[in-house]
Amino acid sequence: MKKHYFDHVAANPLHPEVLEAMMPYFKEEFGNPLSVYEYGMRAKNAIEEARERVAGLISSKPAEIIFTASGAEANNFALRGIALARQNEGKHVLVSRMEHHSILNSARFLEKSGFTVTYLPVDKKGFVDPGTVKKMITDETVLISVTHASSEVGTIEPLKEIVKVAKERNIVVHTDAVATAGNIPVDVRELGVDLLSMAAHQFYGPKGAGALYVKQGMRIVPLIYGGIQESGRRAGTENVPAIVGMGRAAELAKAELAKRIEYLRPLRDRIIDTMTEVDKVYLTGDRENRLPGHASFCVEFIEGEAMLLLLAAKGIFSASGSACSSRALKASPVLLSMGIPSGLAQGSIVFSLGTGNAPEDIDYLLQEFPAVIKRLREISPYAQGWGDREEGGECTVKE
Amino acid sequence: MKKHYFDHVAANPLHPEVLEAMMPYFKEEFGNPLSVYEYGMRAKNAIEEARERVAGLISSKPAEIIFTASGAEANNFALRGIALARQNEGKHVLVSRMEHHSILNSARFLEKSGFTVTYLPVDKKGFVDPGTVKKMITDETVLISVTHASSEVGTIEPLKEIVKVAKERNIVVHTDAVATAGNIPVDVRELGVDLLSMAAHQFYGPKGAGALYVKQGMRIVPLIYGGIQESGRRAGTENVPAIVGMGRAAELAKAELAKRIEYLRPLRDRIIDTMTEVDKVYLTGDRENRLPGHASFCVEFIEGEAMLLLLAAKGIFSASGSACSSRALKASPVLLSMGIPSGLAQGSIVFSLGTGNAPEDIDYLLQEFPAVIKRLREISPYAQGWGDREEGGECTVKE
Repeated sequence: MKKHYFDHVAANPLHPEVLEAMMPYFKEEFGNPLSVYEYGMRAKNAIEEARERVAGLISSKPAEIIFTASGAEANNFALRGIALARQNEGKHVLVSRMEHHSILNSARFLEKSGFTVTYLPVDKKGFVDPGTVKKMITDETVLISVTHASSEVGTIEPLKEIVKVAKERNIVVHTDAVATAGNIPVDVRELGVDLLSMAAHQFYGPKGAGALYVKQGMRIVPLIYGGIQESGRRAGTENVPAIVGMGRAAELAKAELAKRIEYLRPLRDRIIDTMTEVDKVYLTGDRENRLPGHASFCVEFIEGEAMLLLLAAKGIFSASGSACSSRALKASPVLLSMGIPSGLAQGSIVFSLGTGNAPEDIDYLLQEFPAVIKRLREISPYAQGWGDREEGGECTVKE
Repeated sequence: MKKHYFDHVAANPLHPEVLEAMMPYFKEEFGNPLSVYEYGMRAKNAIEEARERVAGLISSKPAEIIFTASGAEANNFALRGIALARQNEGKHVLVSRMEHHSILNSARFLEKSGFTVTYLPVDKKGFVDPGTVKKMITDETVLISVTHASSEVGTIEPLKEIVKVAKERNIVVHTDAVATAGNIPVDVRELGVDLLSMAAHQFYGPKGAGALYVKQGMRIVPLIYGGIQESGRRAGTENVPAIVGMGRAAELAKAELAKRIEYLRPLRDRIIDTMTEVDKVYLTGDRENRLPGHASFCVEFIEGEAMLLLLAAKGIFSASGSACSSRALKASPVLLSMGIPSGLAQGSIVFSLGTGNAPEDIDYLLQEFPAVIKRLREISPYAQGWGDREEGGECTVKE
């Protein structure tokens, strides 16, 4: 059976040219970048070249890039590193309810460490309102973290406006750009953010490579202490092949960005246009300001898990809730924060497209997915009007 | 010019069979282990198989292995995670002066966070004395961290005896086994430790893969928060290829351990026996209880850096001080803690051998290294009796 992979938010296949760039560093170029002899120097040069390429993707300076092992590590590093560095100025942090677990759970750790965290509400499309941010800032606020785009519902946040509000009060702003960097234009100067997280495997780079942009001059407390790697800000022997791969992936993404977006958007739009015609299937997130390859829905009367399994049996691979929580079997906090009732939120499904998807893949999806919904509803007690689901299931998403 | 690589403590070349095991996960098996469909399940299974193999290397249960991105991360995680988890029982931590920067700098972070840290002294061979540990334990002590072996001087610590002393007082023991796991027999039950750090690239595995053994039932606070990966104890999309590589490397190391040790020891001994015959060249660390492929020296009247460069010019690659501090240009704190005067400590050099080294490589080293020493001493003002170095340079290492 042919496979149709629509879960690029969970993992991208590695670009063949990225793997090619990595290969020498699994073979003859195995040196430690801290070594003073030629193997070390070539490894060091390879990392610095990768740093330039990653900086190029987001229009930062190379020295503003700190490599990490994942987007999650970058997010933990940013939140805790800035909170600790600035705690003498205040102990209040603002994070949005659209954030990834790595932000939300870091925020909870800060609460346990004596910080106060305010969780910014979002509207039904998942937007954080800059006016609300302004109201929630206190004299104690030292950090605001708002995602650039949610990988769960695809909504791209009005980050520039949020930064503007924060900067009136001289507050540091971090954004989780794991879903956007390498997928839509990201320019740290234009956005005005002080810190930005990214992950290579979101733009056809390898797993095990992430980065945190930290604006020049910004003090940050390390998350991982040890040697002098990354200018003493992140210890551990550098994962040279993965870093090289991230650099090459960044270079390719920058060169092909417009072309990739142009290719993905119409495919995405076909899915959204077709599926929202199906009875009680609701788009989640915003229709316009959304990730180019991202189509997410809530399907009334059906469990996300059941859809995933029936689709998988047909060779269609997708996710429910956040990419990281398909196995967690809980209603997504992001969907709940958008005011989606918990019953409906259980019926969440996300299709995230990649450049490897052909128009024929979309044809197949749009043929099979409505059939899967129909079949599941035939066996759903809720769809038959039984059970207590219907009551709470009123749609608050569709306009 | 032929290359002679004697810096396996800095980085091991990847075993070709390890790379072979990793390759499918860079290609068709690119799934996210949290995904519920087949790509995800195969990635998940690959990780669990790797976990069994890593557990097999140290005789732990698979569920006691938490994958990290480096030995440094494992060390940070252990120190801070246990200190935080047990802070209500006491806020005193013991670490030895032989520790890697990732332990020492984590300990300093704990001091800033309100913990008291006592640094255990070592003798001139780098041994921590269990009797001293016993004396330094207080009612507030919750954690002791002593390295299994120092990668700088090769000394293998009397860990079992240290654990015995700690267990009389019911104190948690962590060991940094980055230099030993995969290189000498390591059995967590026999050692009796509660936590143990390791790194794959120290036993012909890939960079970017480490692990922390955490004894069953031991509570630890995460270092990286986020999703449910690693049973919620270490978040971030798993670096599947690197983890698979670590598993394969562990399996190979276990199978070949005795053979590797048998091969390396005589090579090491030849270096030690020959070089200690050279005037004012002193072995650092213990002669008997030392890592099988590890020969380290202090050379009077010469800077380590100068030796590295001249040797490198002859195709011989080695390190000075700790592998991570060749570039840091400071006298090694480990050597200073052993009572080696700072002038002599500047003349540190470490040769760490691997299975790829042939006896002919050692012949070449033992021909070239004495010549390099001679040449450098001819141009050294200290060796001529000038300068103020001689005064402080009295040897406290040689017996």
